[in-house]
Amino acid sequence: MFRINDNFTKLPASYLFSEVARRVKVYTESNPGTDIIRMGIGDVTRPLCPAVVEALHAAVDEEAKGESFHGYGPEQGYGFLSEKIAEFDYRSRGIDIGTDEIFISDGAKSDTGNIGDILSTANRVAVTDPVYPVYVDTNVMGGRAGELGEDGRWSKIEYLPCTAENSFVPALPVNNPDVIYLCYPNNPTGTTLTRAQLKVWVDYCREHGALLLFDAAYEAYIREDDVPHSIYEIEGAKEVAIEFRSYSKTAGFTGIRLGYTVVPKELKGVDEAGRSVALNGLWRRRQTTKFNGASYLTQRGAEALYTPEGQRQVKESIDYYLENARMLRVGLAEAGYEVVGGVNSPYVWLKTPDGMSSWKFFDHLLERYHIVGTPGSGFGPSGEGYFRLTAFNTHENTRRCVDRLTGKS
Amino acid sequence: MFRINDNFTKLPASYLFSEVARRVKVYTESNPGTDIIRMGIGDVTRPLCPAVVEALHAAVDEEAKGESFHGYGPEQGYGFLSEKIAEFDYRSRGIDIGTDEIFISDGAKSDTGNIGDILSTANRVAVTDPVYPVYVDTNVMGGRAGELGEDGRWSKIEYLPCTAENSFVPALPVNNPDVIYLCYPNNPTGTTLTRAQLKVWVDYCREHGALLLFDAAYEAYIREDDVPHSIYEIEGAKEVAIEFRSYSKTAGFTGIRLGYTVVPKELKGVDEAGRSVALNGLWRRRQTTKFNGASYLTQRGAEALYTPEGQRQVKESIDYYLENARMLRVGLAEAGYEVVGGVNSPYVWLKTPDGMSSWKFFDHLLERYHIVGTPGSGFGPSGEGYFRLTAFNTHENTRRCVDRLTGKS
Repeated sequence: MFRINDNFTKLPASYLFSEVARRVKVYTESNPGTDIIRMGIGDVTRPLCPAVVEALHAAVDEEAKGESFHGYGPEQGYGFLSEKIAEFDYRSRGIDIGTDEIFISDGAKSDTGNIGDILSTANRVAVTDPVYPVYVDTNVMGGRAGELGEDGRWSKIEYLPCTAENSFVPALPVNNPDVIYLCYPNNPTGTTLTRAQLKVWVDYCREHGALLLFDAAYEAYIREDDVPHSIYEIEGAKEVAIEFRSYSKTAGFTGIRLGYTVVPKELKGVDEAGRSVALNGLWRRRQTTKFNGASYLTQRGAEALYTPEGQRQVKESIDYYLENARMLRVGLAEAGYEVVGGVNSPYVWLKTPDGMSSWKFFDHLLERYHIVGTPGSGFGPSGEGYFRLTAFNTHENTRRCVDRLTGKS
Repeated sequence: MFRINDNFTKLPASYLFSEVARRVKVYTESNPGTDIIRMGIGDVTRPLCPAVVEALHAAVDEEAKGESFHGYGPEQGYGFLSEKIAEFDYRSRGIDIGTDEIFISDGAKSDTGNIGDILSTANRVAVTDPVYPVYVDTNVMGGRAGELGEDGRWSKIEYLPCTAENSFVPALPVNNPDVIYLCYPNNPTGTTLTRAQLKVWVDYCREHGALLLFDAAYEAYIREDDVPHSIYEIEGAKEVAIEFRSYSKTAGFTGIRLGYTVVPKELKGVDEAGRSVALNGLWRRRQTTKFNGASYLTQRGAEALYTPEGQRQVKESIDYYLENARMLRVGLAEAGYEVVGGVNSPYVWLKTPDGMSSWKFFDHLLERYHIVGTPGSGFGPSGEGYFRLTAFNTHENTRRCVDRLTGKS
């Protein structure tokens, strides 16, 4: 009888957002007509910007005519887009990334999940805690996690707590991991690391031969000068880091799907025999074998983001969300909460009052203020006692949320 | 130092299409102005049909307005599409497939590649030979292939030759494999299996506890009654088979990306402890963790294929390619070649004359007739001595190709 991948049976059911939905349903059924404000949304709400819409229509028209039809494209993406990425996302910041180091895909979730394909199952992994669950779950599937303990931690994964105690700055690992995931600006805490703080990680990886998987999905929200937009702003990072980028939160591409991953040619791991092997070629082989390129339409849409109008329109949208984040941050502080994030990020992260558990606070917020957010414990053990609110609702609802919390309504 | 996945280093460079391009370049540089006809194209050339184009424009307009904007969709695809699939692709053929057994994705290449994630690396694999290289290469990456022998075969993979000797009907395996890949209508040979012939495979898998991975990417080209469009037309197949479908060759979606995979709830493997585990839940977990859904635009485009106009327009396009296939098949036979395929398939597969090697015949065709095709040996050891021509060029070029081969021009 054929066998399944046993690692899958180790994964507990993923219940965070379904449990949120269940509790909201129970509450609204007992309290019909309650005006609930949803601040747990992790998805954008503003439409695609006009420059993108125009480019998408034009690309559809190209696909409608034999002489301009595009079938299979390059698995690693079209040059018209990777050239813009190299120029605007990197060269403009003094970083030299070749178009053959850029791999365009259907999104950062796919890439952060699939990257394990090119890595040995023997590698030991470290993650910050709380963390985007995909990093942990995909390593469970890949056989790198060990066993799940009663404390919610996997035995072979090193957890690097990020809490108020260390100002949400993770300490360096102590167990000499081979692969380290960092996501900055961070999901879920909304915190960032400065140039000097990121340099510590790049230096650590260089010294210890560790691979840094750097998720920069929220890069476009950065407004402070000392916060790097790319890990490659740090000297030597090309020797140790893969960077994941996404158009989802940047340009509202969550529904039309696009992201990219940078694998510098300098970046090398070792094989069984200790020989040095460049990851660029491995990822190229993975993508050309298991992926057939991102949609031509979406790639043309993304190209339009690099025009002056596209840049202006995207900034406008992100400014809109950042104003929501500001309102939340200031309002929550005024209401007496300890809060971080929301400056270079669409997420604000608050400490629950009086040592309340994340889920208890969820119920409290729902019942007392009719506000829905996301319990921090859903993002890992060190998220317990914290809570996430997001900036993806409207100005009006965000204002009403703050007014409720500060007792102004 | 972090370690790479050593299996990647076993993969030889994939050189088939680059070597084709190189030889064509060398020839045209020495013989400038030669009028070369490219019949090796594995990609569609006709534009998207009007029903799809209209639906794509409408979907772009939805994404342009806040009130109709769609962000993240369900990872397994939208109900508006899976309901159409269940109705038109299955119920209309008397097959009952639930929408929760359908997983919409960015394409069959991704799915046939990623399916290995949910299967044990201990499974032994069988493939027909010649074969779509993705099945073999992804099993090399996944550690199921063993070592590459000098005969071009991987030590742990069972090859099931399909040649003129067995009328391109693979014999049942003898080494009791756990996972068997079948692609019908076949790429590259263009041959099909009848209902009775496919039943032999389903029965074998049921008896031996093997998993059947059935790639039906060319289903829409079937015109003969006795050739099943779905493996689930065979009784008992839901207990043993996963079916992969694609909109690429059906509706020209190679550039805009869409496919789907059916994992019936009855289909079960075993875990380490011998417990029975349903694959539907495993694939759902894989897709929700490592994939974020296919583009909303493309899903709306596919929905339009199930309208009366969409159905008519798609059939028109496929009829166009099938007429090319017919011309090639008849013309090649007239020119004295042994040829199969081209009836329920866009591919024709011919035996090279006088025992010529596939590459020698490539050169011969290029130099003598200025026609480019694909050497059969590129698809596996049993493809040696064969050659693939495709129906994806225009009527005019296909006619000219045939005229050259039959000496009419």
